[in-house]
Amino acid sequence: MKRVRIGLLGCGTVGGGLVELVRRNRGVVADRTGVELEVRRVLVRDPAKPRPVDRALVTTDPAAVLEDPEIDIVVELIGGIEPARTFVTRAIEGRKNVVTANKALLAASGGDLFRRAAERRVRIGFEASVCGGIPILRAIAAGLVGNRISALVGIVNGTCNLILTKMSEEKCSFAAALAEAQRLGFAEADPSLDVDGRDAAQKLQILAELAFGAKLDHAEFLVEGIRQVEAEDIRAAAELGYVIKHLAIGRDLGGELELRVHPALLPVVHPLAHVRHEFNSVLLRGDAVDEMIFTGKGAGSLPTASAVLSDIIEISRNGHGHEPSWHLPEAVDKPLAADLESKYYLRFPIRDVPGVIGLIATALGNHGVSISHASATLVEGRPDCGNVKILAHRCLESALRRAIGEISRLPVLAGPAVLLRIFEEGL
Amino acid sequence: MKRVRIGLLGCGTVGGGLVELVRRNRGVVADRTGVELEVRRVLVRDPAKPRPVDRALVTTDPAAVLEDPEIDIVVELIGGIEPARTFVTRAIEGRKNVVTANKALLAASGGDLFRRAAERRVRIGFEASVCGGIPILRAIAAGLVGNRISALVGIVNGTCNLILTKMSEEKCSFAAALAEAQRLGFAEADPSLDVDGRDAAQKLQILAELAFGAKLDHAEFLVEGIRQVEAEDIRAAAELGYVIKHLAIGRDLGGELELRVHPALLPVVHPLAHVRHEFNSVLLRGDAVDEMIFTGKGAGSLPTASAVLSDIIEISRNGHGHEPSWHLPEAVDKPLAADLESKYYLRFPIRDVPGVIGLIATALGNHGVSISHASATLVEGRPDCGNVKILAHRCLESALRRAIGEISRLPVLAGPAVLLRIFEEGL
Repeated sequence: MKRVRIGLLGCGTVGGGLVELVRRNRGVVADRTGVELEVRRVLVRDPAKPRPVDRALVTTDPAAVLEDPEIDIVVELIGGIEPARTFVTRAIEGRKNVVTANKALLAASGGDLFRRAAERRVRIGFEASVCGGIPILRAIAAGLVGNRISALVGIVNGTCNLILTKMSEEKCSFAAALAEAQRLGFAEADPSLDVDGRDAAQKLQILAELAFGAKLDHAEFLVEGIRQVEAEDIRAAAELGYVIKHLAIGRDLGGELELRVHPALLPVVHPLAHVRHEFNSVLLRGDAVDEMIFTGKGAGSLPTASAVLSDIIEISRNGHGHEPSWHLPEAVDKPLAADLESKYYLRFPIRDVPGVIGLIATALGNHGVSISHASATLVEGRPDCGNVKILAHRCLESALRRAIGEISRLPVLAGPAVLLRIFEEGL
Repeated sequence: MKRVRIGLLGCGTVGGGLVELVRRNRGVVADRTGVELEVRRVLVRDPAKPRPVDRALVTTDPAAVLEDPEIDIVVELIGGIEPARTFVTRAIEGRKNVVTANKALLAASGGDLFRRAAERRVRIGFEASVCGGIPILRAIAAGLVGNRISALVGIVNGTCNLILTKMSEEKCSFAAALAEAQRLGFAEADPSLDVDGRDAAQKLQILAELAFGAKLDHAEFLVEGIRQVEAEDIRAAAELGYVIKHLAIGRDLGGELELRVHPALLPVVHPLAHVRHEFNSVLLRGDAVDEMIFTGKGAGSLPTASAVLSDIIEISRNGHGHEPSWHLPEAVDKPLAADLESKYYLRFPIRDVPGVIGLIATALGNHGVSISHASATLVEGRPDCGNVKILAHRCLESALRRAIGEISRLPVLAGPAVLLRIFEEGL
């Protein structure tokens, strides 16, 4: 038996889940792996708050965790950049292994932290930082290590997926679905990190850094959230045989990478179209395995704690000085593609004017964008108010945006155009 | 850089795939992991056959692989019990690490081989033995190591899934679908290992031994193949909202395990219902992660070689003497459940006799089996020949079998009853 002492930074949703999981499954973990787990110290901000942990273990002094020589592994579950970065850096400098679920920290400073860890010969476990309970980073870095990965596409934000599922199945508005997700505890009071796509972009950065072996910065990705998706679009998509999902897409185009996060129309027969509610799913394409899909709960207390625990055990078994099996790259940059080719769904809010489809189609055609479907509908009870919906064949997005610029100056337009990409790969 | 020399036993479909994959991705593997791969010797039976490997490496002498002190890892891709078992045992006794894709060998002698490997402090990698390219064993043993797994259900035989997909989508007979699968190279000339369920049973044994930590013997499982499934059943299932899939099911009922392999009706909205053609998929339920699904290609040259390669690299990085992270148990027996509770689909071939539904329903009722749906249809153009189809509510299979015994003695029966279980968990 090998006794492993854990120092916990933060004891919120995931930290509480970890304490609970260690308590519940300590015995079965010891039987399976020979590792005996002990939560030795827990750093919190507010010591008065009730916690699922022995009061004697709670401290408000970071040094009580970071400088305790008996602690083998520091588990950072505070979230956000600071003070998490300072604490993790101190843990590494003090030659402690680190496990973290902090995607924001890794997206901001992953390369630097991994370099420090390599210098000090300690390890950083970060399975929990992407897609909660799904062992997706392990799959990329170990299970598929013999593959060149050419593409990955995922539903990686459970809040967005829950909202879009509700909008689609309960035919409600974005605002109503968001309120319901907040009521269920799946969306924060300020939901912008999720619904504006930044959370998904951070996860995509980590997935793509591992899959493509390149240092990336999600600030350079194409990132769109789901606020502009209206019930009208979900209905129109369904009629055309599509569902709308919020996707994170990474593709290795050879010389360049394509990295984007946005809502997209998926054909109903696409394997990701069936991923509902708060579930996450990642589809990978490797040159040896072809297509592979991993689906599960991407967030929540116990699923995320499960990923944290898997890293704790792996590090415990391999011990100090063992070369880490996978890490985030520090400096291998690859350029991002400047343009994008896709099929598109477009919606133009219009005043009802005869010939408006013709005007729009002509403007699209002027920029080399051809159309596979066009329809005009009126908003019920408002004869002066309607929508033209267009499906565009595969074209360059730059050309399409020029066409939309031209169309937006037409006097028949009643509001800004909605542009959604259609994603048909991986069928 | 660490140079790792591979000795290959067998160079057929998977062996050839491994040689090709090493050649293609040696550089990217070295960059990612610091491991430089070299195929040093290849044992074959027929040296005259053309192989994708330098002639000078080919040998027909097992000792040239097993006793070469320069070889670090022996990769066994011969298949079957002997001579694979003798070769693997000799490799272990000679303190060589072993990677194998041989589920039959592991199902027969896994416990013994892992005990020997532990004594000699070498490792056995076996990711490739179940579900080809899907890193499912890694997921169970490492990614979900902090979970108690209570259930797993999988589509683990690509041949059966391809045949059932064709029967369902092309409305053809079992014989026609099998012939097509053979023509496409997805079924052997003698398909019985696949279509009679034994291949799936061996995989289920390995999955369940890892998931439940118990030594098992697939000879004791309930195992049924797909030969008895007729186009008639697939059509009837579709009308009732189900698809028929060949499932491997393992459940930990607390004191007992339930282990079974058989065709089953899945609701069309079940996540496994969408797994088509030769794809495999495994759904697991862990106490922390809840439900998780892994889908990908479960067989074939390169997908299986990808799994072999992942084991080679993991062993190379951790080296001799490292404690294996996971192994098959040698002796922890758990009893198998004697009976089974399920919903059922039943089909009774009948001569058209008024009142036959009443006779069958009464016999079922006599044994406590109640009915949720009953219908009688005549075979077109043959008024003397029909089918009664029944959906039975959840009941004990032992009771149902007694009822079927009674029904089979009714003079209206025109052939043996078809019994298919309905699987609704995991929704």
